[in-house]
Amino acid sequence: MTSTTHDSATDETAAVARVRDTLDRQALLTTLGVEVVEISRGRVVLDLPVRAAVTQQDGFVHAGAITTLADTAAGAAAQSLMPADKNVLSVEFKMNLLSPGVGERLRATATVVRAGRTITVVSAEVESVDGDARKPVALMQATMIAVDRR
Amino acid sequence: MTSTTHDSATDETAAVARVRDTLDRQALLTTLGVEVVEISRGRVVLDLPVRAAVTQQDGFVHAGAITTLADTAAGAAAQSLMPADKNVLSVEFKMNLLSPGVGERLRATATVVRAGRTITVVSAEVESVDGDARKPVALMQATMIAVDRR
Amino acid sequence: MTSTTHDSATDETAAVARVRDTLDRQALLTTLGVEVVEISRGRVVLDLPVRAAVTQQDGFVHAGAITTLADTAAGAAAQSLMPADKNVLSVEFKMNLLSPGVGERLRATATVVRAGRTITVVSAEVESVDGDARKPVALMQATMIAVDRR
Amino acid sequence: MTSTTHDSATDETAAVARVRDTLDRQALLTTLGVEVVEISRGRVVLDLPVRAAVTQQDGFVHAGAITTLADTAAGAAAQSLMPADKNVLSVEFKMNLLSPGVGERLRATATVVRAGRTITVVSAEVESVDGDARKPVALMQATMIAVDRR
Repeated sequence: MTSTTHDSATDETAAVARVRDTLDRQALLTTLGVEVVEISRGRVVLDLPVRAAVTQQDGFVHAGAITTLADTAAGAAAQSLMPADKNVLSVEFKMNLLSPGVGERLRATATVVRAGRTITVVSAEVESVDGDARKPVALMQATMIAVDRR
Repeated sequence: MTSTTHDSATDETAAVARVRDTLDRQALLTTLGVEVVEISRGRVVLDLPVRAAVTQQDGFVHAGAITTLADTAAGAAAQSLMPADKNVLSVEFKMNLLSPGVGERLRATATVVRAGRTITVVSAEVESVDGDARKPVALMQATMIAVDRR
Repeated sequence: MTSTTHDSATDETAAVARVRDTLDRQALLTTLGVEVVEISRGRVVLDLPVRAAVTQQDGFVHAGAITTLADTAAGAAAQSLMPADKNVLSVEFKMNLLSPGVGERLRATATVVRAGRTITVVSAEVESVDGDARKPVALMQATMIAVDRR
Repeated sequence: MTSTTHDSATDETAAVARVRDTLDRQALLTTLGVEVVEISRGRVVLDLPVRAAVTQQDGFVHAGAITTLADTAAGAAAQSLMPADKNVLSVEFKMNLLSPGVGERLRATATVVRAGRTITVVSAEVESVDGDARKPVALMQATMIAVDRR
């Protein structure tokens, strides 16, 4: 194993730890019950178990909760490719709701589309997970910015 | 008072009652602590008191909570102009985060830009309220659709 | 060949012909020099040869021309899955510009994400084509609506 | 007149000249026939006379041409508040099409919502102008970035 490979694995471990720490410090995620499924460089998967506390008037998961899930995954995916001295903030995002948020849980998978020094663009898909069934629920296109960590 | 005026006032009262009922049945709003400030035809104002349970890693209100506030206000504003047999769903929205969500409370003011039979476009501004100080926090442009009430 | 297969092939041929006809009647595409690369059900590819007439101040292709390419491909992809008596209109779209529009040509590939009776959501990627090199230039997420053909 | 006022007027004149120069160097605007109506700090108005060359299949102005008008006005409004050594690029924008682009001309009015050192958010409204009649045609929310002038 070359030192480059070694460094790279170390980098990945450190980046994943930073992302996990950032996720752990977001109180809203605890309020909603968001769970971390996977963190890797450029890709983060989060789950939101469906329960009454996150629903809208028809008993579906509220678009705001779906957006919280997708935005958080998108920000985490962006952070996973940033240096340790940078924090990530959402500049903006756009969300299409494709079908009602139902099932056992919603799963957001965020993937970095383009990582720049300042601006990172991320795509996030949210799907409904119900036993073996999967169904697309929402699609987000998000713009994140790297800012100096305070 | 003409019967037209009378009907119109009745319509407004009925529409406001329908919107309030829809808001009351959204469990996520209770989870986050959202408060209704104003409902009129084509314009809805909602507040989110700032508290730890809705924050992200820096202690600011999470973009997902801000979006929940704005999307809910936008949907309610759209519903306020729809007939009684229609329900409103978010097709999509786009949100710019302008400054950190801080202060005593965040206030979303949603205004219908164009009300169509099927599609309604709504603009929603979120500002920070801290004593007498106000500061823009976020700006949303949203597309809502009228569907038959089930 | 079963009649189902036969009908399906006929349907595809008819749908492709309708999309091509719609593209042929868009004068702006001639003004900009847009070329049809591929039309199939749910997927349309269009090219914009890079020339001075479509540029902005730095000599890159103008974001408006890139958007025209992507929006047109997205609308065509949506129309390809609609019945013959429906026309397609853009409700809204969101576009991220990822890198400057340079090279020999820009290529937009639009893919339907979700086709509904009324609302169709489409994703469109624009890439720069320069000899064998390809580079992502823009990413669009678009909402299309089916309206009765007049 | 205080020197501060004097400097400010000079600044405005210089900023307007820079914006006009940037607009003059965008060949696509000549191709489409875009006309400058007003440039002031934080606000730019552009017109697109309606003619066949900018239309889609129904004879309405193509969403891509409407977007070009709005995006150009938005970028110019952002540039008008930036220092002389900065250039402006579109990070992303979101566009709602409200009604068909018809009439004698379309007019885009772009207003800066928040001007930051790096990121500027702009709102742009497009309306149809037909004699004395005005009608909303489109609404854009755009994110611009300041980059070092090359």
